Amino acid sequence: MKTLNVSLGDRSYPIFIGQDLLDNVDLFSQFKSSSASFIVTNTTVEALYADRLEASLHANGQKVVRIVLPDGESYKNWETLQLIFTGLLESNADRKATIFALGGGVVGDMAGFAAASYMRGIKFVQIPTTLLSQVDSSVGGKTGINHPLGKNMIGAFYQPIAVLIDLKTLLTLPKRELAAGLAEVVKHGAIADSLFLDWIEQNAQGLNHYDLNCLEHVVIRSCEIKSEVVAQDEKESGVRAHLNFGHTFGHAIETGMGYGEWLHGEAVGCGMAIAAELSQQLGYLSIDDRNRLTRIIQTLHLPTEAPQWDTSRYLSYMSHDKKAESGQIKYIVLEKLGQAKVQKLSDDIVIPALKACGAL
Amino acid sequence: MKTLNVSLGDRSYPIFIGQDLLDNVDLFSQFKSSSASFIVTNTTVEALYADRLEASLHANGQKVVRIVLPDGESYKNWETLQLIFTGLLESNADRKATIFALGGGVVGDMAGFAAASYMRGIKFVQIPTTLLSQVDSSVGGKTGINHPLGKNMIGAFYQPIAVLIDLKTLLTLPKRELAAGLAEVVKHGAIADSLFLDWIEQNAQGLNHYDLNCLEHVVIRSCEIKSEVVAQDEKESGVRAHLNFGHTFGHAIETGMGYGEWLHGEAVGCGMAIAAELSQQLGYLSIDDRNRLTRIIQTLHLPTEAPQWDTSRYLSYMSHDKKAESGQIKYIVLEKLGQAKVQKLSDDIVIPALKACGAL
Repeated sequence: MKTLNVSLGDRSYPIFIGQDLLDNVDLFSQFKSSSASFIVTNTTVEALYADRLEASLHANGQKVVRIVLPDGESYKNWETLQLIFTGLLESNADRKATIFALGGGVVGDMAGFAAASYMRGIKFVQIPTTLLSQVDSSVGGKTGINHPLGKNMIGAFYQPIAVLIDLKTLLTLPKRELAAGLAEVVKHGAIADSLFLDWIEQNAQGLNHYDLNCLEHVVIRSCEIKSEVVAQDEKESGVRAHLNFGHTFGHAIETGMGYGEWLHGEAVGCGMAIAAELSQQLGYLSIDDRNRLTRIIQTLHLPTEAPQWDTSRYLSYMSHDKKAESGQIKYIVLEKLGQAKVQKLSDDIVIPALKACGAL
Repeated sequence: MKTLNVSLGDRSYPIFIGQDLLDNVDLFSQFKSSSASFIVTNTTVEALYADRLEASLHANGQKVVRIVLPDGESYKNWETLQLIFTGLLESNADRKATIFALGGGVVGDMAGFAAASYMRGIKFVQIPTTLLSQVDSSVGGKTGINHPLGKNMIGAFYQPIAVLIDLKTLLTLPKRELAAGLAEVVKHGAIADSLFLDWIEQNAQGLNHYDLNCLEHVVIRSCEIKSEVVAQDEKESGVRAHLNFGHTFGHAIETGMGYGEWLHGEAVGCGMAIAAELSQQLGYLSIDDRNRLTRIIQTLHLPTEAPQWDTSRYLSYMSHDKKAESGQIKYIVLEKLGQAKVQKLSDDIVIPALKACGAL
């Protein structure tokens, strides 16, 4: 088992990465409390892993209550969040209760926001079971839900007390979701570490075929990169924005398709292709590097062709993005592979890049 | 104009107290931003004060958008909160937007929670227009909404960037709401300052008759006491709990009656009478002091007789209270007038006090 640390002063916490952590009773002893443990999960993940988590908590003498949500991004809304609150209240959860978020990014975001808001804040542990949540959303304290007018618009910065990553849960992940997680892995290489990007390129087949050694490497390196960025800028007033590479376009695609139609990682994959095109048009990336990044995304079975909408439709969705400020949209672009920066750009600069990737 | 300070490190903020602050254009110059200003208020307060606030913001060159909510505690729920989020999104509010919460405790709690949660946190200013919100809820960063199963169960600790108290807004307050605010004033004396309690007793008639000098004194002294407590214990892990004197019983009454039937301050007034009885039965307060506190509450036109429910009904509501932990309910009791403490008590100790105040 490897242990990383997210350094955030009195809100610091460990990330444990290894195999079969769900059954590691000793590991769970640190979460013992005088109150109950709440497993928040979805119907799919409950069937696969909730019994093992519950057994490890029981072995530590904890009372355990399950709160099972419907599965899918389309349920990342207030109604589902309310199910968590009602479940907590019906079991008389008090301020010492701990939530264990068992599942992917949707479960982690919602369980985290519930923990942030229930009685104005109780403890929670992230147990991400998808690649996307292991390499990205479980680390850094971004929690929240979607609003009909925009993705992740309602939420909180609220850090977990620990992240437990059991790599073997990836073995039950559908191929499409594995690929979606790899989008965020590529992102980490693209914005922060060109050698890591080389490694991903060389090991794409291992990654595509669920090789646990390959997956362990990308999970660890992704958590390292993300932890360093978050430690520098918890609330995204500066460098943390780089993690949104591909996301301004990606969110527009998700919003326009309706949440859940494209997976988040698929939209980010395509968003990175558009952002790479934009970076090339701005004169930062060479044509070769743009092509190389696009090819890596494709090799990992991710889309790079944008939905055929009018560019005005893209721009309308993007103006709702959290990265927009005072009417100007900020984009994350690559100065070179492994190095990102934030740049405000007017629409007439962005439209050609959108068109080059399939927009009308 | 008097300025107090709430000392919370990098989350410190000023409280401005005076007359006609709504028209003080200079005062509002400190809230200028590159983004829009959102006035969140309710239908009643909008008609009285929104034009003046809007004019002061306009005079500073700010774009202003109003979001007007229905008036009343029964609307302190998710559906109304959603109106705020939708209003913000429809006007493309970005991360630099500022919310001005213009109204009483319900508006302040909801606008504050909206500010805490919108894009994971934007700035907000409290402009309390009721006595209850001026002496209590606008200071300290408690924000939130009710859940059908419990009051204030969903929320955040989120501090405003300033509190502006225009004392003259109290002149339009209905008598019943003035009295409700005075309940929290009495509470501050009861838990922290017996000399202040003496002063309240001696000036009860001035307070009941909207004497602005009397009201200024209780607003300033209440904000001082509350600020000191919050500075010591922002997240209520210790002494801040004393501010809940009367509230465990009060919340049970509010929950049982249905939100909005009794005003919060009325329920707290009655809750303090029950807590005083409990403190006397525990041997802390003398019979004279218990009678004196009850008489002060009555003189301010607040109820001291509890609804005639079975004690088991009270206990059931109280077990949902946020102050409950691991099945035991913590009560705030008075060791003497001007000094409070937290004590876990079993039901058989509490039941006689409830019965002495009208419960069955």
